[in-house]
This record gives sequence, C-alpha cells and structure tokens, in this order.
Amino acid sequence: MKYSRRKFITTLGAGSALLMLPSVPGFSKPIFSDRKNLGVALVGLGNYATHQLAPALQETANCYLSGIVTGTPGKDERWKKQYNIPEQNIYNYQNFDEIADNKSIDVVYVVLPNSMHREFVIRAAKAGKHVFCEKPMALTVKECEEMIAACKKAGVRLFVGYRLHTDPYHKAAMKFRDEGNSGILYVQSEFGFKIGDPTQWRLRKALAGGGSMMDLGIYAIQAARYSIDKEPVSVTAQEYKTDYEKFAEVEESVTWQMEFPGGHVSNSYTSYATPANNLYISTERRWFNLMPAFSYGGIKGMTNEGEINFRPVNQQAVQMDTHSKCILDNLESDASGEEGLKDLKVIEAVYKSIQSGTKVKV
Amino acid sequence: MKYSRRKFITTLGAGSALLMLPSVPGFSKPIFSDRKNLGVALVGLGNYATHQLAPALQETANCYLSGIVTGTPGKDERWKKQYNIPEQNIYNYQNFDEIADNKSIDVVYVVLPNSMHREFVIRAAKAGKHVFCEKPMALTVKECEEMIAACKKAGVRLFVGYRLHTDPYHKAAMKFRDEGNSGILYVQSEFGFKIGDPTQWRLRKALAGGGSMMDLGIYAIQAARYSIDKEPVSVTAQEYKTDYEKFAEVEESVTWQMEFPGGHVSNSYTSYATPANNLYISTERRWFNLMPAFSYGGIKGMTNEGEINFRPVNQQAVQMDTHSKCILDNLESDASGEEGLKDLKVIEAVYKSIQSGTKVKV
Repeated sequence: MKYSRRKFITTLGAGSALLMLPSVPGFSKPIFSDRKNLGVALVGLGNYATHQLAPALQETANCYLSGIVTGTPGKDERWKKQYNIPEQNIYNYQNFDEIADNKSIDVVYVVLPNSMHREFVIRAAKAGKHVFCEKPMALTVKECEEMIAACKKAGVRLFVGYRLHTDPYHKAAMKFRDEGNSGILYVQSEFGFKIGDPTQWRLRKALAGGGSMMDLGIYAIQAARYSIDKEPVSVTAQEYKTDYEKFAEVEESVTWQMEFPGGHVSNSYTSYATPANNLYISTERRWFNLMPAFSYGGIKGMTNEGEINFRPVNQQAVQMDTHSKCILDNLESDASGEEGLKDLKVIEAVYKSIQSGTKVKV
Repeated sequence: MKYSRRKFITTLGAGSALLMLPSVPGFSKPIFSDRKNLGVALVGLGNYATHQLAPALQETANCYLSGIVTGTPGKDERWKKQYNIPEQNIYNYQNFDEIADNKSIDVVYVVLPNSMHREFVIRAAKAGKHVFCEKPMALTVKECEEMIAACKKAGVRLFVGYRLHTDPYHKAAMKFRDEGNSGILYVQSEFGFKIGDPTQWRLRKALAGGGSMMDLGIYAIQAARYSIDKEPVSVTAQEYKTDYEKFAEVEESVTWQMEFPGGHVSNSYTSYATPANNLYISTERRWFNLMPAFSYGGIKGMTNEGEINFRPVNQQAVQMDTHSKCILDNLESDASGEEGLKDLKVIEAVYKSIQSGTKVKV
C-alpha cells in the first residue's frame, strides 16, 4: 500500500521537500541523500552479517554496503579489504555515534545479539539514520515501544529484518486467505533445528532474552499472523526440555496455540533440539503447505491444487531492497517496528502461559 | 513378534490342539474351523462397510465375506445378491446371537456407530466368535475393559480396525525411531476434514461419544504412540469451535500435546472443519514426513534423505488379512483390544484437559 501524500504529511508533519518528499521535523539534514540507493552500515559482524547480509548487499539495487561497525579488532581489516569499505566508514561501538556526520551512510542495520538491539537502534536513530533491526526486534514489548518512539522522534524509519515478508512463497501464503470464500480455519507452523555450540550467546538469557522461541519460534508466530492477517487474542503454551545443562537459561522446545478473532486457530512448535520447518494453512476445503518453509532458500510449496513454484530469490537482498525502497519512495512497510512489537507481545504471552500453565490473553 | 508356545499357553491356558494350536478353555468348540481362511460377518452395513470393507474382503487371502448383520430391511437383499451370501448367514440385530451356531462364520466385524461397539463385541464374544471392532473401540476406557474381559472369558481374539498399523508407510514410521542413535524428539500429527451431512450419527454425542477426536484425532494419537512406541504420561488439550449449531453436542476441532517418558513430545490437531492430514517425526537431525498421512490411499512419504515410495496396498484388505493370520497362526497383534483401550485412555485425558484448561496425567 502506498502512503498517500496526505497521510504521510499527517503522520510525519510537513516540511521542505527533497526529491518531492517531505523532510523530517526536528532533523535539520535531509533524511537521505539525493542518490537512488542507500548506504547501509552493518552493526555487528557475526555469522548472519558475514554469510548472509554482506553477500546479499552485493546483489541489491536500492542499497549497498557502505560501512561497518564492529567491536572485534581485526575484523574491520578483513571487511575493509573484501568489500572496499572506506576507512572513514568504519566504526566501533564507542565512536559509533559519530556516524551522524557521515553522509554516505543512510541506514544502520543492527545485527547484534538481541539484548543490544534497543541500545543501538536508539543510538542510530539519534544519529539521524534509518534503521534495519534484526529479529527479534528486542527482548520485551517495552523495549520495542522505546525503540519505536526514538525513531519517531528522530524522524527516521525503522524496519525489522523479516526476510520472509518479501519471499514469494510467503507472499503466496499471505494471499491464500483471499482465494475463495471461507476464511482460514487452521495454521500449523513450526521451525526448529538442533543448535550447536553450547557457549554461543543464543543460549544466554541476558543476551538472547530467550531460546528457540526468540530465534525460531518468532517465524512461526509471524507466519500465523500474516497468513491470517489478524492479531491473536489468546495464547496457550507448553515447554519441553531434554538437555537441562545446555538449556539452563533459555527454553529448548515450545508448543503453543493461538486463537484469532473469527475462529482462526494456529498450532506451532519451535525447538533447538530437533529439525522442524513447515507452514500449513487450511480453509474449509483448501490447503497450502510450505516444507521447508523458513529456510534461507529451497522453500517448496504445495497446495490442494498441486505444486507451486517461484523463481528462487536472495531473501536478504530482496528484504533490504524492499526496505530501502520504502525509504526512498515513502512506502508503508509490513515489516516495521510496529510489526516487530506485535511479535514480542505474543512471545511475552507465550512465556506467561508457560509459567501459569493456562490460557493467556494477548 | 510371534507368540512363543509357552507364552501363549501361559496366557490362554493349555488345551487340546487343532492344527497344532491350543483350544480355548471354557469354549467347547474349536475356535476356528480347519480351513485356511476365516469367514467374516460384517455387522452394520454403513458407508465404511459398503465402500471399504466389503470390497476389500474380495481381495483378502486369509478371510472372506461370509455373512452380514443389518438392521435395515432391504439392505440384506442387495448384499446377498452382490456378494453371493447364503441366506442362513444373514442376521439382524435381534437374532444376531444365533450366529453362535453358524460354523461358516469365524469372525464378527463390528462396524456400527461407536456407542454400539461394546454391546455387539460382547455379544459376538459370547457367541464364540473372534471380533474385529472398528475404531474408536468404544466410548470409554471402562467399556474397553469390559469388552476385553468378555473376549478373554470367551476365549476369542479381539482386534481393533486400525488400518494403518499394516500400511507400509506407517510401518516405516514405526521403524524410524530405530534408524540412528537419537530417540524421537518430536511428532506432529494431524487429521481433519470438513464433515458434511449435519444429521449424521458422528455428530451425536450419544452415538459417537465425541466428535473429530473420536473419529479422526484417534489416528493422530495412534501415530504419535506407535512412532514413539511408548505411552504418554501427560496431555494438554485445547478445543475450538466455529459452528455452534452443527457442533452443539461434540467437539469440532482440538489441538493437543502429549509428553512421553524420555523427552518425546507430540503436538496434534484434529478437526471436522478443515482439511489436515500429516505425520511428521524428527530426531536430533533426521526427519520423516507423510502427507497425506491418514488417507485410504495415496500416502506420500519424504525424509531428510529424500522421497520414500511403497507399492500401494488396499489398507483394509491387508488389515483384515493380518488380523486373520494372527488368529490362524496364533500371532500377537499390535492392534488388539488392549491397543484400542490405550487410545481411549488418551482421549479421556484430552477431554479432561479441555474441561480443566490444564495439563492432565494419563
């Protein structure tokens, strides 16, 4: 859906125009340069930034890798060389705020451990940069609200790194509800795998905020929410553990059920113990299935009418290009901070239901 | 597993032998004739008997359609003609007990509405006939126990009409746990469809005992139980309803979770509102999937190593042949009355959990 000019002005306030777009109140510089693609700085050069985002940024049209922010000495040299990043576009966590003065960086992509999302999104917003933030957006609903408020105040856009909102198979899942007369009656979504290294931050509560639910279960929540296109009204959840040492701080496996207005129901599973990777949606007589559903590639689709096939895409490249286009063309996004917050609302309800052993209102 | 002679004698007691098999105490006639295949009488000539069992009995080697028991005048003439059934092998519900004197009927297959299973299984046992009983075995655990006791007392065998215990895809599911070092960590099983005619007995509590759970959910319970090969220790369950008129008496849709000793977990769904037909099993790194899983035919299998394909079988024919062979050769069965009772134990726990909104011990 395209922002109408009126709506955009109402939302963000009127101002001087660059490329016929309003500037942002309370922010003296134009929110982006007059070029057609945006410079992106990656914050946190871990596995996902290294093996997915940086390569994807070599395939994007609306954005490119212009800078890096890293706390690990030595990493900067390798990245600088590999991606031809100018010295002045390399920051560490201490001098990060100086990025405000760097006109060649329009977007900061926060790819840090979950517990650091809030801080770096807010610092990026204060530096006047648009923000892409990896999922889960933060550890709590409260943090999400603070991040949204900070971006709003700074007049910058905030996107969550949901790579599947722009995947063709998942876009087909979103459209499935419209094909036919009956609404969706059931969604089954599950994502899990056996996690390796027991020392990684994803198993530390203080850094990750939770376990498989925060990292993988969020995809299953997302899929149910965007397939049904409504928000759940209640959640029941059950936790399971087999390795009490490895999962001393965070959940290993969870099943949970969501009820939506109008009789929609979802049943989901997430796990760090075992593979699971499926999205099933059904109406009265029709069904739609993706298996695998949540992988970086190789998604396979089947419906009651037969196989569905789409040209494979680089999910991260399409995601970042789409977010960038939303900035460049003032388009609404279905992967905004508000969307990220909705998932955290459900996750908080899941944890509450596990604690109480009963149904919890969202 | 073959009954050892010692075990069989211990279980049923020693006696005179026919075909080198022990006869049954308290029952003067031999439990079956000296022929190599058994005469089966179908009790209840509804949809399943008409369209599945009778045709299947034309393909069986160890048994054949020798008689019918029907309460509907007119039906007998059609069946008599179509299947060449002798007049003296046709009974109604009133004179059914005279079947005791009919040497050409060895087995009574009870295909009546669920609420009538108990009565007709016990009457068949008292008539000295082995019994096949459709699933669910009965309405309650107590009824199952009474049926098992009656068959034991009469010295006849009791089998439940589980057509998937002998299906090659489901036999592969049962073996999956043995292939590799790690146990099963997760089973996802679901079976549902949109039910038609709102006047049918399956929607009447007094006749069916319950709704989708009794009819379809039982397959999902079964699949989890035989994939894991253990009994659940606890169950949580959630009920959902969209059509309060049609489902005034019985459940429409249910999700439920089972915990098994050793960390095995299952998450399931059943519905009379929407299609669902899947069995997924995973260990630490391996997975096995059937979709559709529970249909009369056309099952498709996939594992982490690729597609699996078996020659299609007539499930009902293989089921009845296998049960008959268990009688003829004194073999143990994994579809005995005791197996049927175990499913009813879980179903009762599911209903209790729906009522209480909490976890229930099985």
